[in-house]
Amino acid sequence: GALPHLDESGHARMVDITAKPVTARTATAGARVRMSAEALELLSAGELPKGDALAVARLAGIQAVKKTPDLVPLAHPIAVHGVDVALVPGTQGVDISVTVRTADRTGIEMEALTGASVAALSLIDMIKAVDRSAWIEYVRIDHKSGGRSGEYSRDRR
Amino acid sequence: GALPHLDESGHARMVDITAKPVTARTATAGARVRMSAEALELLSAGELPKGDALAVARLAGIQAVKKTPDLVPLAHPIAVHGVDVALVPGTQGVDISVTVRTADRTGIEMEALTGASVAALSLIDMIKAVDRSAWIEYVRIDHKSGGRSGEYSRDRR
Amino acid sequence: GALPHLDESGHARMVDITAKPVTARTATAGARVRMSAEALELLSAGELPKGDALAVARLAGIQAVKKTPDLVPLAHPIAVHGVDVALVPGTQGVDISVTVRTADRTGIEMEALTGASVAALSLIDMIKAVDRSAWIEYVRIDHKSGGRSGEYSRDRR
Amino acid sequence: GALPHLDESGHARMVDITAKPVTARTATAGARVRMSAEALELLSAGELPKGDALAVARLAGIQAVKKTPDLVPLAHPIAVHGVDVALVPGTQGVDISVTVRTADRTGIEMEALTGASVAALSLIDMIKAVDRSAWIEYVRIDHKSGGRSGEYSRDRR
Amino acid sequence: GALPHLDESGHARMVDITAKPVTARTATAGARVRMSAEALELLSAGELPKGDALAVARLAGIQAVKKTPDLVPLAHPIAVHGVDVALVPGTQGVDISVTVRTADRTGIEMEALTGASVAALSLIDMIKAVDRSAWIEYVRIDHKSGGRSGEYSRDRR
Amino acid sequence: GALPHLDESGHARMVDITAKPVTARTATAGARVRMSAEALELLSAGELPKGDALAVARLAGIQAVKKTPDLVPLAHPIAVHGVDVALVPGTQGVDISVTVRTADRTGIEMEALTGASVAALSLIDMIKAVDRSAWIEYVRIDHKSGGRSGEYSRDRR
Repeated sequence: GALPHLDESGHARMVDITAKPVTARTATAGARVRMSAEALELLSAGELPKGDALAVARLAGIQAVKKTPDLVPLAHPIAVHGVDVALVPGTQGVDISVTVRTADRTGIEMEALTGASVAALSLIDMIKAVDRSAWIEYVRIDHKSGGRSGEYSRDRR
Repeated sequence: GALPHLDESGHARMVDITAKPVTARTATAGARVRMSAEALELLSAGELPKGDALAVARLAGIQAVKKTPDLVPLAHPIAVHGVDVALVPGTQGVDISVTVRTADRTGIEMEALTGASVAALSLIDMIKAVDRSAWIEYVRIDHKSGGRSGEYSRDRR
Repeated sequence: GALPHLDESGHARMVDITAKPVTARTATAGARVRMSAEALELLSAGELPKGDALAVARLAGIQAVKKTPDLVPLAHPIAVHGVDVALVPGTQGVDISVTVRTADRTGIEMEALTGASVAALSLIDMIKAVDRSAWIEYVRIDHKSGGRSGEYSRDRR
Repeated sequence: GALPHLDESGHARMVDITAKPVTARTATAGARVRMSAEALELLSAGELPKGDALAVARLAGIQAVKKTPDLVPLAHPIAVHGVDVALVPGTQGVDISVTVRTADRTGIEMEALTGASVAALSLIDMIKAVDRSAWIEYVRIDHKSGGRSGEYSRDRR
Repeated sequence: GALPHLDESGHARMVDITAKPVTARTATAGARVRMSAEALELLSAGELPKGDALAVARLAGIQAVKKTPDLVPLAHPIAVHGVDVALVPGTQGVDISVTVRTADRTGIEMEALTGASVAALSLIDMIKAVDRSAWIEYVRIDHKSGGRSGEYSRDRR
Repeated sequence: GALPHLDESGHARMVDITAKPVTARTATAGARVRMSAEALELLSAGELPKGDALAVARLAGIQAVKKTPDLVPLAHPIAVHGVDVALVPGTQGVDISVTVRTADRTGIEMEALTGASVAALSLIDMIKAVDRSAWIEYVRIDHKSGGRSGEYSRDRR
């Protein structure tokens, strides 16, 4: 009763959302790719060996949003109505922000997090020839709206 | 010549690895999922509403390794000969370590990073009902061996 | 007219369901994996070499439900709102039951059958090192509700 | 404002369709596979080495319609409610026509074009042993209905 | 040591096959779809509403073989060098036999079983409008060859 | 005997290539997207509403090469070692050329054709807001090398 994700034996299941209303929902997730000064300089100057790094990461993020139910075992397949991926080079790396929109029966937070993670992974792939120590940090939900639990904004870490 | 990932117009491409030798290779990637004390306690006590959280994350990580070329646009599809996923609850969250093995023409680092990222995402999905602020940090390559560039071990951050 | 799955030349097609109403629907499918007494004993004692056999099969079943339109050529892609997979070891093997729920324009029986089949296949994969003669039997719809054809319960074979 | 597919920095995004109404829509796309007289004769006589060529192409087209959002990066995943694939051998090759139906928030033209293209590719695969010069031409939208832009019929080229 | 599919904590993993030799291997799996006399008569007379039932099931089986590592969580992705699917209508239903061939580091039994299962599921989908009680039985390995464990032929059940 | 793609009953199958040698192979396929003068002008001036059209099409083509065995039913899954996609705007549209490289047991022509087709489809998707009559023509193999049948170069149509 209190634990809808468990069946009576305590095992994982995909909880039934048939009775939930369809409502407009959004979620924004962020991630940061940290890299060497050299890699960042090449990226900012557009001189990375795999030059289209930001374009590749942006598209990989958009496409990954659509693959979320195939990656996260208990995620419901839901409609994906809009995706924005922003990639902003800064002083220590690249900040990634992914906003996803839907009108469906459950939240779209996992879709936003998956988009941010895969954009970050693809960025790593594009720069790993010049910096094999690059890493991803702070993959998190920044904001969500819609659904029964309503609005949520992350306090800064 | 110097920039094998670019065609003559400077555009991204999948660089030709036909001439590279098949060699045994391994890569180990790590990630950490940070969560509230309450979520961690429920997880350690095996009382999370979605109880099989670690089992779900482990399988999601193994399966994601196989999906790397579908997620990372310029990644080569390569053989995947072995995958280990370890998930260790600690004082501030869960440490994830993914080791991948192959014998193929190019490195398997992206596969390890993808496995670690998706295991982390799946863990977030399993605990988000009790902690919607959980986040992922420090997704990185810890070790690799094999191939022309040989052995690499990460210095601690 | 009478044969909606055929075009005018008698060829297979995906029949148009645009005009059908969205209604709540459920389907329950079952399957049984038969195995040696030794394999069953190891499984019941939790001593199978691939120990998480039931957890792996359960997750594989849930994920396969989502892949039904990719596996069954003429199946419509439909919403999947809930999935339960039960695995019950008995005297001759393991009984699998998969219940799927949706609110959509067509039935969800193929999704339930696909989930049961892939859970069974994954169980075979987990025990094949100790019993290479294990087999699957009696994959069938046990119950469905919703839609124009209404309720259906299988008579025992 | 005027360019909904661009974010403020001019980058590609998946435009938000949450506010668009769900309406019934259809699209019909065509393609033509050109081949040698010998290949066409074998095909018409049902004597092609890979005899089921038309059946294989038909199913490949139906299945590809369902994969459109996985192939076309910025395509929205939408419901697919019906698919018809017609393959008509003529004097110079085989004419392919794919009609797709949905009730959703955006058009289904890309799904029809993808179905026609993949049916054509599969036909090439089936005849390439007897004609390695076969090619595809004139992949186009012939007709669409539904949605804000309403009815469209192609003028003959 | 004795349990290669378990890591040191007893958790499932994809066992490392890097050191195993590449050898030619085959596996043949079978399955049977049971159906009503009416459905079988329509099928044998080629008068099923979804007439291409056998062709659809055959192609679905071939394609499913290629998807095995995506369906069975711990299965290794391996080369698939050849697939034959036979469907033989009999007195009580349709017998399915799938033979798969490879040259790789591990066995191809799961691929054969997956092909037989999905061919059977697709056949059910094609006849369910005329027989909603049809079921699948006896999904099993009939024969395998190659690899360390050598030849195996099933004793009749 | 003479028709390796047919089983003894005349049905389609995936022909066994286990005994074929692994050899280096390449294939180059081309396609052309025809569009209005206005669309072409916006594209050449970099002022298309979906500005990254060429980058999106290039990545879609590379990724589609990897999905060929999932799209073309009887295609063997083979290694993909390198992919180049060139997109050249001309006076009547955009010329697409895709070169694919492998070392495997069978040809890579279908991979090249699939890459060219999906790059073209993605380009259509990017321009359809400004030209809904755009079409694809002349999808063909321009060149192949390697394998038993050796070198082939297309005569101009």
